[in-house]
Amino acid sequence: MLKDFTKRKAEDKGELSAEIKALREKLMGQQQLVRDAKLPIIVLIEGWAAAGKGSLIKELISEIDPRFYSVVSPAILPERECRYPFLYPYATAIPENGKILFMDSGWMEAAVRKELHREITRDEYKRRVRQVNEFERQLRDGGYLVLKLFLHIDRDEQFERLQALTGSAETSWRVTEEDLWQHREYKRFRDAYESFMEATDATLPWHVLDGSRRKAAVRDALSLLTAQIDRALAAGRYVGEPFDENFPLLEMPKLADVDLSPSLDDDTYRKELKKLQGRLSELHNLIYREKIPVILCFEGWDAAGKGGNIRRLAYPLDPRGFDVRPIASPEPHELARQYLWRFWTRLPRSGHICIFDRTWYGRVMVERLEGFCTELDWKRAYNEINEFERQLTDWGAVVLKFWIHIDQDTQLARFTDRQNTPEKQWKITDEDWRNREKWAQYEVAVDEMLARTSTENAPWFIIESNDKKYARIRTLRIVVKALEEALENHFARSMER
Amino acid sequence: MLKDFTKRKAEDKGELSAEIKALREKLMGQQQLVRDAKLPIIVLIEGWAAAGKGSLIKELISEIDPRFYSVVSPAILPERECRYPFLYPYATAIPENGKILFMDSGWMEAAVRKELHREITRDEYKRRVRQVNEFERQLRDGGYLVLKLFLHIDRDEQFERLQALTGSAETSWRVTEEDLWQHREYKRFRDAYESFMEATDATLPWHVLDGSRRKAAVRDALSLLTAQIDRALAAGRYVGEPFDENFPLLEMPKLADVDLSPSLDDDTYRKELKKLQGRLSELHNLIYREKIPVILCFEGWDAAGKGGNIRRLAYPLDPRGFDVRPIASPEPHELARQYLWRFWTRLPRSGHICIFDRTWYGRVMVERLEGFCTELDWKRAYNEINEFERQLTDWGAVVLKFWIHIDQDTQLARFTDRQNTPEKQWKITDEDWRNREKWAQYEVAVDEMLARTSTENAPWFIIESNDKKYARIRTLRIVVKALEEALENHFARSMER
Repeated sequence: MLKDFTKRKAEDKGELSAEIKALREKLMGQQQLVRDAKLPIIVLIEGWAAAGKGSLIKELISEIDPRFYSVVSPAILPERECRYPFLYPYATAIPENGKILFMDSGWMEAAVRKELHREITRDEYKRRVRQVNEFERQLRDGGYLVLKLFLHIDRDEQFERLQALTGSAETSWRVTEEDLWQHREYKRFRDAYESFMEATDATLPWHVLDGSRRKAAVRDALSLLTAQIDRALAAGRYVGEPFDENFPLLEMPKLADVDLSPSLDDDTYRKELKKLQGRLSELHNLIYREKIPVILCFEGWDAAGKGGNIRRLAYPLDPRGFDVRPIASPEPHELARQYLWRFWTRLPRSGHICIFDRTWYGRVMVERLEGFCTELDWKRAYNEINEFERQLTDWGAVVLKFWIHIDQDTQLARFTDRQNTPEKQWKITDEDWRNREKWAQYEVAVDEMLARTSTENAPWFIIESNDKKYARIRTLRIVVKALEEALENHFARSMER
Repeated sequence: MLKDFTKRKAEDKGELSAEIKALREKLMGQQQLVRDAKLPIIVLIEGWAAAGKGSLIKELISEIDPRFYSVVSPAILPERECRYPFLYPYATAIPENGKILFMDSGWMEAAVRKELHREITRDEYKRRVRQVNEFERQLRDGGYLVLKLFLHIDRDEQFERLQALTGSAETSWRVTEEDLWQHREYKRFRDAYESFMEATDATLPWHVLDGSRRKAAVRDALSLLTAQIDRALAAGRYVGEPFDENFPLLEMPKLADVDLSPSLDDDTYRKELKKLQGRLSELHNLIYREKIPVILCFEGWDAAGKGGNIRRLAYPLDPRGFDVRPIASPEPHELARQYLWRFWTRLPRSGHICIFDRTWYGRVMVERLEGFCTELDWKRAYNEINEFERQLTDWGAVVLKFWIHIDQDTQLARFTDRQNTPEKQWKITDEDWRNREKWAQYEVAVDEMLARTSTENAPWFIIESNDKKYARIRTLRIVVKALEEALENHFARSMER
């Protein structure tokens, strides 16, 4: 895309200005339709240092109502200072329905630059390319219009521009060491950009703009943007088709086949609890120090004992190093974005433990059953969730998922107890009773979820919880074992280096 | 508070455990009432290094449902890395109604430590103490229960604990240079804590807990917390009384007395626009480089031309260094917090320009007139807003506020034009017509707002906008002049150092 790029011919300035004016007016007219159609738009602008990305954005936004757009320039932190997954800065920045986000350098620049700097290995780079493809497809399938532009200038042009910038006292500070390094390494960068673009062109194509013709680049960008908006508005909101990548799945039993009889006596319970909590506290120290992120997911039947389980887990942890994230129904500003956004924004920093009390699996349970999303949406979600969780474990996170399981009789007994105990009455609502009536439907959904999303990297554990004591000890044991293994692997890898 | 502190007598362990158990059960019962009463609670836990703040929090939260609380430990960044106002980490972390926030070291530790490190001057320290008092009072007046605890240990106790921690390989990394420095400088720290507490005790009192008696400290903290919750629940939501601090106010004309006739011819407009935009672009570079934050606030009549004004301002700016924040009606998660929270979370980083399209002044205009807040709330807001803006200018921000002004005839003409022009119809809503009927009421509110909140540090400018061209040039001129002055002062101060 870049090697065979030929500069555009010069065009008549007057004509260009007229074209730009007309396109801007078109965009101005579209902004309202975009809002009404609740179409979210991301314009990613990548390109060379000094190619004029900032000026291009300036021209693109100049006539848009500020209520409809925002501009972000995600910083590229040194890898060792990154406390979140690679895609975090981009996934948390996505716009809400009806708004346009302009991103001044994004996931491409970050991936390419870090690889050229050897801040990440070649393997890690490849994983990031895969993640980018997943991310872009998920956005598209979630109804986002994503326009990817690359602003291109050749080496000579870059030389002239950098020289002009450094020549003036007022602008010289804008040229960074990084820019000069890119200029010296122009060919390596060109190859790297090229290869990144080729690897990420299939789902959402790249558009290379000639940065040496500033006005023409503005015209071309506006023309692409307005044309794609037209197309998107005419086609109606895009909803992606489900498809399965082959994730290595663990075999899971059906809920109906789970033996719920295991129990523990008080004495064993107390002894084990103390021992395991003590060990967990030690492990938390190490996890914190070695900056390993830990994500523990809890789902389960109402009154199965999620809360009690979580409290026993949380008690030995240093409150400065963990968070419990209770997930309620989404708020309006959350509903207005791709559904994983509200989980991206709740991820822990590396070294922290995050316990999700209900999770992104709501998509394939309550949202599926109550019709809060379309059939395509929840069918697509299995794969999207597997990808999301792989992105987390790629980052180095320990991801464990617990289904807290009881049978219907036990639930009834606990509901009745809650109903009859004044201090517990707040825990039981009409909705709980309504959900209970849908037990059979939920069971189908949960079985499907467990079968399709228990991956090697992010496994599900069905916790038998008719006996709460047994359940708590089993959960603690699984967490302790997983953290021990993660630390062992971590230290083994450190030794290799 | 600290010098004359005497250690508590040892108490019977069994009795203490029983007390703690009873208090925890009480707290468990209260959490539901807190939620129903929508009472937001902040428990600030300050204290010595190694005093056991983390363990105390652990004990406090152990029985609370994770949906009702969160824990934060705001980092104390080196002053030169702080890109936000002093109170930013705390003001953005406040909990929503019905939830409890535990803060592990907060504004006191940050202010005291920075002063002892001489990262801030004595004057700046005093300003921060004043800001803390303002912040705490605003929280209280907004219905927050704020409990301030200080966990105290004497120098010998600290010595023993630090030694125990450094003695074990597993815990030694937890002791920082900073902790050891505090220990060496114990007396200076004690005096500084003491003086901070004395200076911030009047509105919300401090409670010193004996950290050397761990169990007793837990009991005391639980007992204070549950007692204060009881009191708050019994009293009903606290609503603060308005009062006026004497801010140096600029005299403002009544809107009715403003001469709206000034206008500009096309030629002058275009020439001036070009000149001023060019200058603004240069100034933006300097502002960015010198890390001066700029906050421009726009309010005005519907159809007065806020949007056009903002676009002319924004056009010459580098989109990577400014943001326009359109302010719509608050979302549920915003309504559930003190009303300034949604503006705190939208502040620019230092060096950035932030343009607010509508602002926190909604409180004393639409919220006042439509009854979206109580009379005490909006009457209190003048002073709260003056304090908030002084906190911004203390930080070094340039704060300018524009009232875009037209008369009723001009508004009618523009409304009619919008109604009759298909591309403009989206800009006019039934609400605009309804607001227009309340012109007289709004005029009273706006006059009062201008009279009471045009401070020397954050002045209002009434922009005559019957002629849009005149209005745009006038706004640009004011901004250019203010930025020039701010840069001059900034460089003058740098020279002094």
